[in-house]
Amino acid sequence: MTNKINIGIVGYGNLGKGVRKAMKQNPDMELKAIFTRREVSQVSENDALMVHISKIEDYKDEIDVMILCGGSATDLAVQGPQIAELFNTVDSFDTHAKIPEYFDKMEQVAKSSGNLSIISVGWDPGLFSLNRLLGNIVLPEGKDYTFWGKGVSQGHSDAIRRIEGVKNGIQYTVPVEEALEKVRSGINPELSTREKHIRVCYVLPETNADLRIIEETIKNMPNYFLDYDTVVNFITEDELKRDHAGMPHGGFVIRTGVTGDGNNQKIEFSLDLDSNPEFTSSILVAYARAIYKLSKEGKNGACTVFDIPYTYLSPKSPSELRKELL
Amino acid sequence: MTNKINIGIVGYGNLGKGVRKAMKQNPDMELKAIFTRREVSQVSENDALMVHISKIEDYKDEIDVMILCGGSATDLAVQGPQIAELFNTVDSFDTHAKIPEYFDKMEQVAKSSGNLSIISVGWDPGLFSLNRLLGNIVLPEGKDYTFWGKGVSQGHSDAIRRIEGVKNGIQYTVPVEEALEKVRSGINPELSTREKHIRVCYVLPETNADLRIIEETIKNMPNYFLDYDTVVNFITEDELKRDHAGMPHGGFVIRTGVTGDGNNQKIEFSLDLDSNPEFTSSILVAYARAIYKLSKEGKNGACTVFDIPYTYLSPKSPSELRKELL
Repeated sequence: MTNKINIGIVGYGNLGKGVRKAMKQNPDMELKAIFTRREVSQVSENDALMVHISKIEDYKDEIDVMILCGGSATDLAVQGPQIAELFNTVDSFDTHAKIPEYFDKMEQVAKSSGNLSIISVGWDPGLFSLNRLLGNIVLPEGKDYTFWGKGVSQGHSDAIRRIEGVKNGIQYTVPVEEALEKVRSGINPELSTREKHIRVCYVLPETNADLRIIEETIKNMPNYFLDYDTVVNFITEDELKRDHAGMPHGGFVIRTGVTGDGNNQKIEFSLDLDSNPEFTSSILVAYARAIYKLSKEGKNGACTVFDIPYTYLSPKSPSELRKELL
Repeated sequence: MTNKINIGIVGYGNLGKGVRKAMKQNPDMELKAIFTRREVSQVSENDALMVHISKIEDYKDEIDVMILCGGSATDLAVQGPQIAELFNTVDSFDTHAKIPEYFDKMEQVAKSSGNLSIISVGWDPGLFSLNRLLGNIVLPEGKDYTFWGKGVSQGHSDAIRRIEGVKNGIQYTVPVEEALEKVRSGINPELSTREKHIRVCYVLPETNADLRIIEETIKNMPNYFLDYDTVVNFITEDELKRDHAGMPHGGFVIRTGVTGDGNNQKIEFSLDLDSNPEFTSSILVAYARAIYKLSKEGKNGACTVFDIPYTYLSPKSPSELRKELL
């Protein structure tokens, strides 16, 4: 029997829990520990794998790859470089504008520690990025479009919940079908923010709250809702629990272009996900496998999904893959 | 100014012509010569770039990568190993069952000559293979489906043309919409050959040919049509020219799977192509760029699309790609 790849999880929110589930579908890997900043005794699913983050260094010889499951905004910018001093890492850093800066920091730390760190893994950034890049490469004369949804936006949901009179709420980003069809037709439309997506909110108000004011406050919120056509639905606590407990998401990357003497060509990649965090977690686990293999080959520093050949993501051998899937 | 990547084309059919057109969209490359087995004076577009294949060895120091544009069945199996003795190569070997054997042969030749050869580049095998592999990696518990079309099948068109009384003809493979919808619904259907695709033929008969006999002969042809629902349309020479001069193709790779506690997840990749050969050619050119870069790094032997990180396909730098497309 070959040795398993030993994995650690840092952070035990939706993403960390998703990674734990995904490990069960990947028998070549073994989960060794889950690191949390909370008191271990206070984590709801407290079990033998839970370890306080202060002890992470003790696991240096035991864990091949750490999967960082914190959020970009606060956790990763700090945790990433700290942990890359000690371990190979995989993270889902998704603040697009700050990727170059974060990459440089991780590159510097991982180069000097001799570890390998892959950043911004997931589906966007991640699989969507790969498809944007592929579209640009194969159809240099063309245009690409990314649509998100139908899916829950955590940031927009949070913004709703901060409004006075709102007890709870959830926001779905929904691509406009008409815009999708325009893009697919190959006419390379220029689409405004408003034309691409609508925002649909389900709001549970406090008793006696002024619904009209809540609705106006949402629709006029700059950055979040003002530039969009926003639909506000008020619902009951029961409806919220029954209909909005899942975390669906998805989207489309479409590249339309022209080759030769004006032949239209179209590439489309899409995702339709019942659980956004579980899907992202499955991707993180696959890239952890690649990082393990590449690190064994002596690679170190920082990298992204653009740098990883698909063979490294699979537990199968290159010759099996050629035979079965090429 | 940096040096351009010097490209040679071997074979000047639809694919070779497509590569020539694609070169114009990739200004970091330069077409140095087109090698043909025909007498150069007899090639319709005879120009300064046309060279008889017997002189290929003279270009050893002038060409970085040869793009082989012959067909798998006859040309590549022989030409591939011969040319890999002298040059880095890219080909579109597409006889799926013979890929392992062809790979081993190319690996052996290219290893000993110190060249780098990528085989089976295009969209299937090629981009579709990448998406089948990705689906298997990210959703280990799932099922994948490939549908082809609507598009012209050269082999089936040829089979029609060999029938007595047929002057000309063309065959389109068309995915069955109902089957696609079943797959997308996530119920993991078992689909027979007949349920997945229909075959639609447009036949120009000889004067006085027996149309009933032609139709029966097509529909009952084993391997080609017998296992499918086949539609035969008889058309005039004018209709054939007017409506069937293009070479459209496309298709779908769909992976449906389950994560965690039964959440359904779906990944779909699709192509909709006005010109199959021009699109395939664009892919060949991008992989020629990767082969050039990897060969400069000292890599040799045989490889496939599974082994190539997307960064190598692009003329842009890794940091530009991270900034613009991640």
